[in-house]
Amino acid sequence: MERNTSATGRDHNPTADSGNGEDNLQNSNNFNKKKEEDEIESIERIFECKEVPPWQTQLTFRAFVVSFVLGVLFTFIVMKLNLTTGIIPSLNVSAGLLGFFFVKTWTKFLEKSGLLKQPFTRQENTVIQTCVVATSGIAFSGGFGSYLFGMSEFIAKQSTEANVTQNVKDPALGWMIGFLFVVSFLGLFSVVPLRKIMIVNFKLIYPSGTATAHLINSFHTPLGAKLAKKQVRALGKFFSFSFLWGFFQWFFTAGDGCGFVEFPTFGLKAYENKFYFDFSATYVGVGMICPYLINISLLVGAILSWGIMWPLIQDRKGHWYPADLRPNSLHGLQGYRVFIAIAMILGDGLYNFFKVLGHTLFGLYHQVHDKNSGTDLPLANHSSLVNPSLSYDDQRRTQHFLTDQIPTWLAVVGYVSIAIVSVATLPHIFHQLKWYYVLVMYIFAPVLAFCNAYGTGLTDWSLASTYGKLAIFTIGAWAGASNGGVLAGLAACGVMMNIVSTASDLMQDFKTGYMTLASPRSMFVSQIIGTAMGCVISPCVFWLFYKAFHDLGVPGSQYPSPNALIFRNMSILGVQGFSALPKHCLTLCYVFFGAAMVINAIRDVVGKRRAKFIPLPMAMAIPFYLGGYFAIDMCVGSLILFVWTKINKTKADAFGPAVASGLICGDGIWTLPSSILALAGVKSPICMKFLSRKTNAKVDDFLRS
Amino acid sequence: MERNTSATGRDHNPTADSGNGEDNLQNSNNFNKKKEEDEIESIERIFECKEVPPWQTQLTFRAFVVSFVLGVLFTFIVMKLNLTTGIIPSLNVSAGLLGFFFVKTWTKFLEKSGLLKQPFTRQENTVIQTCVVATSGIAFSGGFGSYLFGMSEFIAKQSTEANVTQNVKDPALGWMIGFLFVVSFLGLFSVVPLRKIMIVNFKLIYPSGTATAHLINSFHTPLGAKLAKKQVRALGKFFSFSFLWGFFQWFFTAGDGCGFVEFPTFGLKAYENKFYFDFSATYVGVGMICPYLINISLLVGAILSWGIMWPLIQDRKGHWYPADLRPNSLHGLQGYRVFIAIAMILGDGLYNFFKVLGHTLFGLYHQVHDKNSGTDLPLANHSSLVNPSLSYDDQRRTQHFLTDQIPTWLAVVGYVSIAIVSVATLPHIFHQLKWYYVLVMYIFAPVLAFCNAYGTGLTDWSLASTYGKLAIFTIGAWAGASNGGVLAGLAACGVMMNIVSTASDLMQDFKTGYMTLASPRSMFVSQIIGTAMGCVISPCVFWLFYKAFHDLGVPGSQYPSPNALIFRNMSILGVQGFSALPKHCLTLCYVFFGAAMVINAIRDVVGKRRAKFIPLPMAMAIPFYLGGYFAIDMCVGSLILFVWTKINKTKADAFGPAVASGLICGDGIWTLPSSILALAGVKSPICMKFLSRKTNAKVDDFLRS
Repeated sequence: MERNTSATGRDHNPTADSGNGEDNLQNSNNFNKKKEEDEIESIERIFECKEVPPWQTQLTFRAFVVSFVLGVLFTFIVMKLNLTTGIIPSLNVSAGLLGFFFVKTWTKFLEKSGLLKQPFTRQENTVIQTCVVATSGIAFSGGFGSYLFGMSEFIAKQSTEANVTQNVKDPALGWMIGFLFVVSFLGLFSVVPLRKIMIVNFKLIYPSGTATAHLINSFHTPLGAKLAKKQVRALGKFFSFSFLWGFFQWFFTAGDGCGFVEFPTFGLKAYENKFYFDFSATYVGVGMICPYLINISLLVGAILSWGIMWPLIQDRKGHWYPADLRPNSLHGLQGYRVFIAIAMILGDGLYNFFKVLGHTLFGLYHQVHDKNSGTDLPLANHSSLVNPSLSYDDQRRTQHFLTDQIPTWLAVVGYVSIAIVSVATLPHIFHQLKWYYVLVMYIFAPVLAFCNAYGTGLTDWSLASTYGKLAIFTIGAWAGASNGGVLAGLAACGVMMNIVSTASDLMQDFKTGYMTLASPRSMFVSQIIGTAMGCVISPCVFWLFYKAFHDLGVPGSQYPSPNALIFRNMSILGVQGFSALPKHCLTLCYVFFGAAMVINAIRDVVGKRRAKFIPLPMAMAIPFYLGGYFAIDMCVGSLILFVWTKINKTKADAFGPAVASGLICGDGIWTLPSSILALAGVKSPICMKFLSRKTNAKVDDFLRS
Repeated sequence: MERNTSATGRDHNPTADSGNGEDNLQNSNNFNKKKEEDEIESIERIFECKEVPPWQTQLTFRAFVVSFVLGVLFTFIVMKLNLTTGIIPSLNVSAGLLGFFFVKTWTKFLEKSGLLKQPFTRQENTVIQTCVVATSGIAFSGGFGSYLFGMSEFIAKQSTEANVTQNVKDPALGWMIGFLFVVSFLGLFSVVPLRKIMIVNFKLIYPSGTATAHLINSFHTPLGAKLAKKQVRALGKFFSFSFLWGFFQWFFTAGDGCGFVEFPTFGLKAYENKFYFDFSATYVGVGMICPYLINISLLVGAILSWGIMWPLIQDRKGHWYPADLRPNSLHGLQGYRVFIAIAMILGDGLYNFFKVLGHTLFGLYHQVHDKNSGTDLPLANHSSLVNPSLSYDDQRRTQHFLTDQIPTWLAVVGYVSIAIVSVATLPHIFHQLKWYYVLVMYIFAPVLAFCNAYGTGLTDWSLASTYGKLAIFTIGAWAGASNGGVLAGLAACGVMMNIVSTASDLMQDFKTGYMTLASPRSMFVSQIIGTAMGCVISPCVFWLFYKAFHDLGVPGSQYPSPNALIFRNMSILGVQGFSALPKHCLTLCYVFFGAAMVINAIRDVVGKRRAKFIPLPMAMAIPFYLGGYFAIDMCVGSLILFVWTKINKTKADAFGPAVASGLICGDGIWTLPSSILALAGVKSPICMKFLSRKTNAKVDDFLRS
């Protein structure tokens, strides 16, 4: 159920050795800078001839019309997937591409008829992409296949426990729209002030965002740029390859456990422990964009957890946790996986959050104290940031990114006022959710939103539902079983998921905007409009499904909605509090929470040189829960880039990002036809199955008889 | 049961437009010449500093000691495979490599101790390779897993028909060795006079032979040649890749129908009709060495037969042939496949045989009539053949190849005297085989030996067992059921298989010798010694198996020897004569026999330019029987080379053969460890299975229960 937002992060050694933002900027972008300086033509030099329209002009009426149409389309797709498998692919790339296709056709038509007033710019394209992603994002974070539907009587009846009235709330159009409106905007306001730190200072990559930006840039490249043309061709070639590969793979996925994604590349034993290469072009591309350190950290994390820890804990089955549990029960091994990962992510996130806070306060103090114009504040004063040692691309992008400010006071006021409305409103929607639960959540939410946006920037995995689970457990336990804790937990999950999910989406889009010179203001407005559209469209689409298909949520039916029951069961567990966790799990959580802090501190102390040999706790934690397969994909990407760089550095530097973006985007676009095939009920004809020799002998006997 | 000798052929437009061998030489080697002229350094220029030892010196004692050891090893491997699956891989490459390894270690050791008298040359290496291939070849053509074992009482009892005494002959060491000695040398003498036509005039490729030669050359390349070094590195790289790929594939082949070789690349329907890419590195490499025309011809043949004809005939099931037959019964569809393929191959082979004969007689006539020194005879007079317009490599190779002659009279005398001994002896071994059957076979054998050697040169497939089946049917039918025709057929199969199989092996080795400047005389002597060793070693090894394992030939046992029963059943069918063939099969055979002749005639008439757009009947016929999968592999190889040539012609020309040889050799060497794994009883752990959606659902239900 984790949602991959498809985009990753550069060396994240933010504000490591100096309180001075300028120095830090210089240090942390070495990877990016070197890459682009080696190119003969920089992307932004090619685009120099094209004027960047002011932010108001980037927000056109036609952009929002197209966004609305695509938003409805994508909401249908996401909703269907919610209710069938619960696995939601990233649609960033499709949104960018289809947006381009729609508006380009329209403007070409107008151009020919001589009616075109405003040319189609890459900024406008980015606005559409942002708006569509925001709209369809609500279909995911709205929990129509998970927590929200899990509240219904329908799902409650399938569970033996806690199906009394106080733990049940049936869907209705009114309260769903209201609920989404009061919770979906908080995430946006909570991370808006952090955009400069995330994008400019930390230089986080957001691989999907970067890939989408490359795609959008390539669509709008003015004629005559030779290298750019070659890059576009490379992107196009690998885009087609990746798309066709996705298509080819599809034919072999007739059932569960079928297809290339289940390929036990290193044997069945390794496959059971989630070590395999799953032939995903997306993650190979992501690995090519991410710095080596991230990929190695992921691999180290995977080996530490799935290679060592989980097998050791599994040996204690029957002692540490009951032996007769279902494999995915949170009382068992899965509990260790989820909670240790959360602990480590929180440790890393909190460390970085407080480090940023400290630097900010330190900078503020200096500014007030010294009145020295040379030092600057990470969150304000930006004119001095355009450092001449930066590549031209980065200079220009940073300049544009910092020109249109969104005042911090606006973000704070926005957050606080929506929070007040929300605290007042939510207990009316869910009686079981007390106002002080909501208030406490809103106090911690910005930290978690930061963590998720930061993690997504590094590894492209948005762990929104993981944070949602955290809320289920804490709020559920607090409310207690007797006070409708099950429903309170689910509602809390919704609040949390909406905040962290929209926060990472916004930051992803800021990255795309940064690379396409779209104004942060237009991004922000577009995201808000998109979110508002989503708050209306998603419940309506869900309502349509709910009313049209009466077997919604019935296991084995067309729309089993597997996650709804899973979330409800988690909430039922949650109300039992910490005691529900398996043995030693909490201790281990403390250890890993502390370890994440310590590793970060060591990274800061030893200096940049040695820090690049110390893995990042945030990146290590993600495979704890998911397994090592995508880490292996990404390492393959790293390896390809490494070998390429050894053979021909100039070429690898110039074409690496284009190839990576092509791989990511091609696979990304394939999700669209594949989703449509799924919607239309077209199933693939062949199953590529992997059986052990013993099972195979049995199956052969069975088939012969 | 077809045996792939792993090597293929250039544009075979021999003596097409002129009776003058010189002209023809100039015309037919355009492909090869261009390739090598573009290279800065030719292979033979690099080797120029190395003296070519006289042919007697190439035949060292140590070479035959190593050959004997490897011959025994390979015979064990082949015998085991004979008795288990009946699928025999080509061992040319392994022989070359292991020969190098053994002698090199020995000479290095001697060199260090200062005792080395004679350095290890590539010619000596080729001699070892030839001898080992000849020895282990007998283990295949001796029919220990097919016709010879099919005569035994053990196998006869498993069939309901024809198990009376006159149709049974149990194996015994004495007669087996005697039988092999009187039939195995005929093939060698029958094609020896044709070596100049096949290798120099026709420029047939023999892809395995070529690849082995590349490998041997690369081992012995003197230091200091820059391009050669790069080529060796390219060969080494793709050798490792291909070897590792073979190793990787092995893990997924736990049962029948498992693994990459069963990958339904174009869907299950296409797979049923043998259209799929089977991921064989060997055939991709072979496709890269073969000219485009061969590969296209194979594909056209595959489409014509498996795409159109067989499905159409299958629709007439119940009308043209009984509907209740086993799928591989020669009374049914399989009969059409086998006999139409044979008809077409015979048509092409005969056409070319008579064309060569015609040109020879024409040349002889002119030489006698005009006494004009300018014209030359394809079989004699060779000094004028070293044409200055040839590449240096070809000049030097042709010169060396033609220096040590094997007189045609020797070949004729050898063939006739062995034939006389054989005609006299064979009826004593098999009473059912009358002396006139043998005589008739020996009259036609040279033509068939030519056909097989020629076909192998073109496509790398030795169809020895197909010719063997032809003998089963003709001699079996002639003898008739009442006169022990079943045993006569099997014995005739042995005679025929030994002749055609050794003939194609010898020609393959001549090609290797041509490319390594090994003398044809030393090749021939080495082949004779190797064959003699094989005639003793193979029966002994079989005797060991026969005495050691009492369940030899029992279906479902460790050594089921599946082909023994198949061959016996074929012979039982054969005695029924032409009436046993399915309806219209004979008519279709006539049509395709004629078509092969007509297409060849058209190719000769339209001129070389247009001829290259007309497919070769010989190449078309091979997939008739085998299916299109290897044609698709080879076309993939062609496509790779085509794209590579488009991108960078110089590089593709310089490295194409090295890459192709690497692919062929790596996969070839992998057969050795994989055979050893099979011998040791190590089975692969995983089965990669391909099931239709329906079957998969059933299997999933079965596994769940």
